[in-house]
Amino acid sequence: MQGILDRFIVIEGLDGAGTTTQMKAVAEAFDEAQVHCHATFEPTSSALGTLVRTVLRKEVVTTPLALAMLFAADREDHLHHPINGIVRKISEGAVVISDRYLFSSLAYQSVECGFERISALNDFPIPRFIVYLDTPVEDCLARIDSRDQGRELFEKQEFLSQVRDNYELIFADLPESVVFMRLDGRKTKQEITSAILATLKSHSLL
Amino acid sequence: MQGILDRFIVIEGLDGAGTTTQMKAVAEAFDEAQVHCHATFEPTSSALGTLVRTVLRKEVVTTPLALAMLFAADREDHLHHPINGIVRKISEGAVVISDRYLFSSLAYQSVECGFERISALNDFPIPRFIVYLDTPVEDCLARIDSRDQGRELFEKQEFLSQVRDNYELIFADLPESVVFMRLDGRKTKQEITSAILATLKSHSLL
Repeated sequence: MQGILDRFIVIEGLDGAGTTTQMKAVAEAFDEAQVHCHATFEPTSSALGTLVRTVLRKEVVTTPLALAMLFAADREDHLHHPINGIVRKISEGAVVISDRYLFSSLAYQSVECGFERISALNDFPIPRFIVYLDTPVEDCLARIDSRDQGRELFEKQEFLSQVRDNYELIFADLPESVVFMRLDGRKTKQEITSAILATLKSHSLL
Repeated sequence: MQGILDRFIVIEGLDGAGTTTQMKAVAEAFDEAQVHCHATFEPTSSALGTLVRTVLRKEVVTTPLALAMLFAADREDHLHHPINGIVRKISEGAVVISDRYLFSSLAYQSVECGFERISALNDFPIPRFIVYLDTPVEDCLARIDSRDQGRELFEKQEFLSQVRDNYELIFADLPESVVFMRLDGRKTKQEITSAILATLKSHSLL
């Protein structure tokens, strides 16, 4: 852990929890309020993130640890890229909202690689604001099943149960100055977005 | 460091020192002696190594630490890939000879990222046999200049001097059971190959 990044919001949750939907909805609210907002996601759309996605789709076979290292490389680039990195965007005055960040690696990759190794790889700053879409595994699986795309590597029930347990362990150990929002992922999209925006407003971000 | 891999030979040196030439010559000698030999190199030809090379050619811009993490991911894959990984090849009875390995990361990436961070990323087994082609920076630069391809990221005089110092520090601290061959890179290709083969024969590898 390398300190806390102000004006940085991260949305986390299981596959199917709705992180992308909420990231977009919150970013739209910032746009409507004419607050400069940089919406982003992991794995990123860079060459590094593209390789991560290729591995997740099993088009490239590698080891779990190599995948974790690729995720970390993509995240380092995501944070510190000289042109469009998160740190630069924040320093320019933007609010940055990311669909997933290092907590996804800690929750997902730790299942196969162990928490210590993944934690050491992810010695990065953490966000001031974390939204956790807390959704039962069964609901996530039902949503994943209804998608027309194929299942990715991580989308298995037992695996997701372990990921959910990992999220709980990680979020039980956050610094006090982090604003942690746990939201019931079974609520409607609008209810969840409203709750997130209310908290962000109470912290004068919006 | 995670132990020592027997029947694993690594050739190291500055850019232009001749590591690729020697890797090929030694592999040919194994072939002629009908000893099963797997010749390989880093960055590898996998999707991971290909991305590393793209960054080295500056076709993708990222941070020095992200590059170091990509190198580590490529190395983890190189070692533990389930089909053609180094560990599997050795377990099947092959001698493996690699043009570069983790010592290249320790020597090169440490210049920008610091030794501690690169060392932590490269917690991999080391080879029983190391060949170091010890070549003055000026000779390496002259050879690089004579190539018709463009210069890569690392090929600068001051930088190579730091890399050379790093190699000395790394090789001063090897476990006793590692067979370390320091060879004068200004000798002829044949002289160097003969010296390597003589040492490998004395250890019954050939």
